Amino acid sequence: MYAIDELREMIREELERKEYAGEPRSLYEPVIYMLEDGGKRLRPLLALLAYNLYRDDVEKALKPAIGIEIFHNYTLLHDDVMDNAPLRRGRPTVHEKWNSNVAILSGDAAAVTAYKYIEYCDDKYLRRGIDGFNQVALDVCRGQQYDMEFETRDDVSEEEYLTMIYLKTSVLIAGSLRHGALIAGAPEDEYTALYELGGYLGQAFQLQDDYLDAYGNVNEFGKNIGGDIVTNKKSYLLVKALELARDETREELLAWLAATRPDPVEKIKAVTGIYNRLRVDELTRRKINEYIEKSNEILARLPVKEEFKETFREVVRELVERKK
Amino acid sequence: MYAIDELREMIREELERKEYAGEPRSLYEPVIYMLEDGGKRLRPLLALLAYNLYRDDVEKALKPAIGIEIFHNYTLLHDDVMDNAPLRRGRPTVHEKWNSNVAILSGDAAAVTAYKYIEYCDDKYLRRGIDGFNQVALDVCRGQQYDMEFETRDDVSEEEYLTMIYLKTSVLIAGSLRHGALIAGAPEDEYTALYELGGYLGQAFQLQDDYLDAYGNVNEFGKNIGGDIVTNKKSYLLVKALELARDETREELLAWLAATRPDPVEKIKAVTGIYNRLRVDELTRRKINEYIEKSNEILARLPVKEEFKETFREVVRELVERKK
Repeated sequence: MYAIDELREMIREELERKEYAGEPRSLYEPVIYMLEDGGKRLRPLLALLAYNLYRDDVEKALKPAIGIEIFHNYTLLHDDVMDNAPLRRGRPTVHEKWNSNVAILSGDAAAVTAYKYIEYCDDKYLRRGIDGFNQVALDVCRGQQYDMEFETRDDVSEEEYLTMIYLKTSVLIAGSLRHGALIAGAPEDEYTALYELGGYLGQAFQLQDDYLDAYGNVNEFGKNIGGDIVTNKKSYLLVKALELARDETREELLAWLAATRPDPVEKIKAVTGIYNRLRVDELTRRKINEYIEKSNEILARLPVKEEFKETFREVVRELVERKK
Repeated sequence: MYAIDELREMIREELERKEYAGEPRSLYEPVIYMLEDGGKRLRPLLALLAYNLYRDDVEKALKPAIGIEIFHNYTLLHDDVMDNAPLRRGRPTVHEKWNSNVAILSGDAAAVTAYKYIEYCDDKYLRRGIDGFNQVALDVCRGQQYDMEFETRDDVSEEEYLTMIYLKTSVLIAGSLRHGALIAGAPEDEYTALYELGGYLGQAFQLQDDYLDAYGNVNEFGKNIGGDIVTNKKSYLLVKALELARDETREELLAWLAATRPDPVEKIKAVTGIYNRLRVDELTRRKINEYIEKSNEILARLPVKEEFKETFREVVRELVERKK
């Protein structure tokens, strides 16, 4: 079995060949720009790991794995337009560097390119592969729709929030594992179990993101701490705080949410203070651990080599212990 | 063989069932809005006609035909955002009625839905069907990219223009015929010939659109006459006029293109006058007829029932003799 670093290197090399970029080059420049800035490559890595569980010729799964990464970056391109986000991984977003038309159209081209790459597989897996990918892609749209609708609501329940991030983030992580296993010839109950496992892993991953926004170290996290707080983003922390806050604490929290042009440093300090009082940080860590445990349970039951399980646990540790 | 009206009725009924609309409904409302306003249904009609050429059970091709219509409407959704168009078929565009985020995201969901529908076919046609659709979808993006790049250029050649509209408009019309024939089990040389034929038909169709913008009857055309002229849209008429105009005529034309906030009625009258002097109207009609002839030549050679050829010619007449 390949080591994580070896797989990451294969992904990096394949992406660097830029075979996905056609004519006119201007249509693909924003996609190249998105893909060249690194990122964790979590999704293609998971696809290759899942494939490698059943087969050694992982180079055959490289194109579909890259397709998933291209798909992920297409969703980021469009999300950044919709969220009017100025920065992505520390660099200007595509609609800032070019304009929003470029981000829309290059994103559309990237989505089709993703389909092209994902279908690199034996004919016998093609229909299930495309069906699975369609389901994932639609779920991501559904999640983004809920996310946008939550912006104007103050009564988002924990369950609604968890469903939203499941659709928006976790299904693609789950789908990466499922697709890798499927095209390697895994039995249905195993690629389905990997999908379930990936769903829990995705939830832990997203909650860790929410946690780091308030409790990360600015130098390591790479984005500004408190960005979610400043923009009133409905993160798990805020959803839980709105659920738990009573009396003056609730009034204080709602006042900060309603404040027009508050000082950002003061607001971050005050809202983080409220989170601390309500122990939202602890609750979030607990929830993350719940998801990790659930994914571990599925992993334990999976009839695969112990060696794979260890590699997989390494990825989980990297994700959940990460500071950025 | 089914009559055109029967096929159109089947398409209407299938669309009316709105089976494509999932949850949350808000994500699909803009897609329903786009699809319920009629339109010519040219692309699904061509897909069904091509299928019907080889098989009688056209109901089996309905879902893929609808998928192509959904795809077409997804491209309109995004194009309207990019062009900042206020109206589509006489009604407010989706980004006007809702907002541009809605148009982007519902468009993305529609694109995936199109893929879901297009893959309704026997497994043996799936890879070629998806490959063909990927190629068409990427070509449409490429055409839109060229179209946007042409906006800021005054030296677009006739050849460049014809390539652009081929990519942006004709390949999808060609692809509709090819997909219908492919999933009906047509031989490769025949579905390829139908693709070529559709390409010529698409060119004639788009040039007719360009022609009607300046020479249509406002009551029949449904949009304002001269919309392309007012916005300096690089239509075939303008590209030809820029190629042919010399001396004072050229200066006059360039002055109208450079004018800031000119009176639209005066501008339309003046530019149409220039077109008349340069005989751009005649040249356009001639070009349309060239394309129709080319498509007729392919049709004549195609070893299919004479009855189909007549039905097909009826569609061509409808498209080229249309006033709107």
